[in-house]
Amino acid sequence: MKILTGDYATLIEHLERSGQQDEQETVENQVKDILRAVKETGDEALITYTKKFDGVDVVDFRLSKEAIQAGYEQTTPEVVAALQAAKKNIESFHQKQKQNGFVDAEKSGVIRGQLVLPLETVGIYVPGGTARYPSSVLMNALPAKIAGVKKIVMITPPDVNGVPDGILAAAAICGIDEIYQVGGAQGIAALAYGTETIPKVDKIVGPGNVYVATAKKLLFGEVAIDMIAGPSEIVVLADQFANPRFIAADLLSQAEHDTLARSILITTSEELALGVQSELEAQLSDLPRAKIARQALEDHGYLFVVPDLKTQFDLMNAIAPEHLEIQIAEPMSHLSRVKHAGSVFLGNYASEPLGDYLAGPNHVLPTSGTARFFSPLGVEDFVKRTAFISYTKEALRLEQEAVTVLAREEGLEAHARAIEVRFEEDVGGEQ
Amino acid sequence: MKILTGDYATLIEHLERSGQQDEQETVENQVKDILRAVKETGDEALITYTKKFDGVDVVDFRLSKEAIQAGYEQTTPEVVAALQAAKKNIESFHQKQKQNGFVDAEKSGVIRGQLVLPLETVGIYVPGGTARYPSSVLMNALPAKIAGVKKIVMITPPDVNGVPDGILAAAAICGIDEIYQVGGAQGIAALAYGTETIPKVDKIVGPGNVYVATAKKLLFGEVAIDMIAGPSEIVVLADQFANPRFIAADLLSQAEHDTLARSILITTSEELALGVQSELEAQLSDLPRAKIARQALEDHGYLFVVPDLKTQFDLMNAIAPEHLEIQIAEPMSHLSRVKHAGSVFLGNYASEPLGDYLAGPNHVLPTSGTARFFSPLGVEDFVKRTAFISYTKEALRLEQEAVTVLAREEGLEAHARAIEVRFEEDVGGEQ
Repeated sequence: MKILTGDYATLIEHLERSGQQDEQETVENQVKDILRAVKETGDEALITYTKKFDGVDVVDFRLSKEAIQAGYEQTTPEVVAALQAAKKNIESFHQKQKQNGFVDAEKSGVIRGQLVLPLETVGIYVPGGTARYPSSVLMNALPAKIAGVKKIVMITPPDVNGVPDGILAAAAICGIDEIYQVGGAQGIAALAYGTETIPKVDKIVGPGNVYVATAKKLLFGEVAIDMIAGPSEIVVLADQFANPRFIAADLLSQAEHDTLARSILITTSEELALGVQSELEAQLSDLPRAKIARQALEDHGYLFVVPDLKTQFDLMNAIAPEHLEIQIAEPMSHLSRVKHAGSVFLGNYASEPLGDYLAGPNHVLPTSGTARFFSPLGVEDFVKRTAFISYTKEALRLEQEAVTVLAREEGLEAHARAIEVRFEEDVGGEQ
Repeated sequence: MKILTGDYATLIEHLERSGQQDEQETVENQVKDILRAVKETGDEALITYTKKFDGVDVVDFRLSKEAIQAGYEQTTPEVVAALQAAKKNIESFHQKQKQNGFVDAEKSGVIRGQLVLPLETVGIYVPGGTARYPSSVLMNALPAKIAGVKKIVMITPPDVNGVPDGILAAAAICGIDEIYQVGGAQGIAALAYGTETIPKVDKIVGPGNVYVATAKKLLFGEVAIDMIAGPSEIVVLADQFANPRFIAADLLSQAEHDTLARSILITTSEELALGVQSELEAQLSDLPRAKIARQALEDHGYLFVVPDLKTQFDLMNAIAPEHLEIQIAEPMSHLSRVKHAGSVFLGNYASEPLGDYLAGPNHVLPTSGTARFFSPLGVEDFVKRTAFISYTKEALRLEQEAVTVLAREEGLEAHARAIEVRFEEDVGGEQ
């Protein structure tokens, strides 16, 4: 892995080159065909695509309660206990995100307020293959539960070996009993439009491959979606006192995900960078997913040596990383320098995988620089707001002039008259 | 305007037929070309498209401070006073939406928390032509200001007659001094990618025509956007004691917007429906925009007579209207029946235009049934959340087993090792 020394301008250029992505016109056209077919023919299209893409003849998309229970029972007690421990922390953290509505009755005759209501139905997508993570089931389902969502529907691609027990255990632990074996763009389309067997939902959350991501993007507006996920990244900010072995281990935990993952160290210490470099080699030597991790480090990894703390934070904020570790002395004191990051891990012991599984904050995070404007998945993703107002006649009278002046300024005469009609002499008394 | 009497199933069928929209493949391809051109050639593309679509040769996209000030000064004192009054109410309502971050230090050695940070840069789109509404400038800009957004950029299509004074007055009142005269998909592209003169923003808000809406949708992910806006609607729920003249006036205020607007009354009283029907005719007779309103009522308006209160609310919730008026005795007591609506107007004097301009809640609302999952524009649209954690070595030790068990269950060995490396014997002491 390369060590690069330089100032902000030089290093940012490297990053921008490495971040470029390809156009994906072809995928989009394929996905559009799939969406149209599912919209028009429902289950029939699902059966066809499931045979074509997953190689499975589906008889019944829905998993039985017995199958879910069996998966739970076949999961080892250690895994069940770990999922339960994670659930406890995730719930206690997300409980603090709950928002209340409010009512404002400060002005005479005027009541204004805001309701916060849970979404009615939510769909969770759980990817197939090696990316089928029980922890993601918890991270997607528990905030929805806390928000008060009544109906949670999970879909996941069918597999000749069946849905992994760990996934079923995680679903059972979250109280999810409605699981359909359908994946890809066709699964997303089914959730968005509804079919004979799959219910239409209000929002679709959960990661997926490029077909899933494209389908979600195309259907945004028809349903709500969580975010557009891209390759994920970690930035570690470290000073000369940080531990190179810890940092190398954390960079590798990111790099082992896939070859597009970005692992970046930004340090003021060349000595530390050298230490991390040699630790990476040492730790790669017996890592099961070494091939993937090595490729990711080669293509998208950087060890940046910068002149000062300010440059460290400027570069990091320019990246707006999904995960940020601050392994600098007195890490908490630097929190106010963070402008754009999904989740921040402070100090030498808040290792990123701790956040992936157990600490409690969500691991569904904005990637590829979208932490500039997107947030971690949370309870707020599963509610919506509704405003309300109530005015007495007298209170309306006080606003009458301003409303009618503005309505006529905008050329909307009927808007002005809707107020004035209420003060005509023959309309009757107060209510 | 038709009166239809029936039960839930019959009436919902009518609504579904009337809500259908066309495919828009052509628009999408045109917009894609525009986005590509702006991305590649920046200002050059903006100049070309502005000449082509707006018929204007732009020398300098940016409006000078003097031009903004002149617009403000040429606005009548009545309009300025009305905008100031609106601003006051909008601010006091949106102040209550402000969210704080939190910190949780309940568990020994563990600190978990969430920051709420304002977006850095926001772009506001103000449409051209007759849809150029000063009130919309306030509704888009003030929540951003309250959220703490430092840089607000406004764009609006150029016009041979110049930008209307009312728009400039509203901008000046909100403290917006960065306004560019560029509109359409090319304007949205400029905000998303940035050009030589127009800054790249983190989020784009504001209504627009189909080209603007399509550009926003296509760029979602590259930037954040507020919502996908469609034709707007009002549903009025009324009992036999409601005032047909008020209701007709409110239905017309919706219908005068455009011919796609939906005005729907759902009442348990046939007598009221008949009264509203004849009031509509009477009030249409001298309405300036009668032609538009009549067409909207004809194509998308309904007077529904239903058997009971439950059917009223069931139908309304199925529509998930942008605006909901409840003109039923003791309106506030029915608030808990509202599952899906953007903004609710309770009682005979909370006329919808009051909410458009002055009451304080936002008038940028989810349309076309998207109130099932989208919210009114608000302070929350202009912030993002960042989670953080800090663990001592001892606190990490307590989670070690659960993290490593889950990491290995998911086949992510490097994740497990990132925790374990911190407890190897030779790594040194506590930090």
